[in-house]
Amino acid sequence: MAFRYFEDFVALVDAAPVELGSHAFTSSDIVEFARAYDPQPMHTDPEQARGSIYGGLIASGWHTAASYMRLLVDSVIGGSESLGSPGVENLRWLKPVRPGDTLAARFSVLDARPSESRPDRGIVRSRGEMVNQDGEIVMQLEATNFFARRPDVSAS
Amino acid sequence: MAFRYFEDFVALVDAAPVELGSHAFTSSDIVEFARAYDPQPMHTDPEQARGSIYGGLIASGWHTAASYMRLLVDSVIGGSESLGSPGVENLRWLKPVRPGDTLAARFSVLDARPSESRPDRGIVRSRGEMVNQDGEIVMQLEATNFFARRPDVSAS
Repeated sequence: MAFRYFEDFVALVDAAPVELGSHAFTSSDIVEFARAYDPQPMHTDPEQARGSIYGGLIASGWHTAASYMRLLVDSVIGGSESLGSPGVENLRWLKPVRPGDTLAARFSVLDARPSESRPDRGIVRSRGEMVNQDGEIVMQLEATNFFARRPDVSAS
Repeated sequence: MAFRYFEDFVALVDAAPVELGSHAFTSSDIVEFARAYDPQPMHTDPEQARGSIYGGLIASGWHTAASYMRLLVDSVIGGSESLGSPGVENLRWLKPVRPGDTLAARFSVLDARPSESRPDRGIVRSRGEMVNQDGEIVMQLEATNFFARRPDVSAS
């Protein structure tokens, strides 16, 4: 299924979530991301992490969010006429993500409306979720994205 | 100034923002992050980005958010008894971030209260901002973090 223009997202309102594939988190990926962006011992040091309240290494929440974005771009946004995003609401880290976890991503359109101020685009509000191999939702967010409207080929 | 326990954050309510230092965004950093996590042409391909509505390469919003986190960990959270974060509200990407931009981060405590269910910790709600060299706020967010309470050394 291809999602290119705003109108393609309108068709997803009240539809089943789009499955975006999955990503396996390895210990070395978790440590590499965290060394660059979130160098807390629970994300970078397996030994110290074992003594923490988490009992072992866990992924930075920003790593989980960025991995969701990657899956979303690969399956949906990469083929679209995306015009960017003004932001995200209700980003929730609900469960720890550990080395060996495989997270499946899914994307649901909450609403889609034409922009009132910019007739070239529409505004899509979506829910994103990352779900682990035990069926637990580990991360949730609500995003807003702008997409170009389908050109009116009948216009002269 | 050291921020270790919940009580150190209580002292920041209604105080001036804490300056977290700055990060310079290079073209290669922007492309490297985006290839891994947000491979849209406006973030990965200078040539295609020039033809986009942005007129040139811009950083992934998730890269800007992760860079804020890095500055926050280096200045504040890294030295604290952090017990993680349940999430973020109102993450806003207000202006594009371009190669050569230097973003200064600042952190303000909105409120800080003891946890009712977990007496070992307090709950800190903060505002984070990234500001570019022209004084424009390019990103904003509101985060919740848990921190351990200061041990009561007078208790026997």
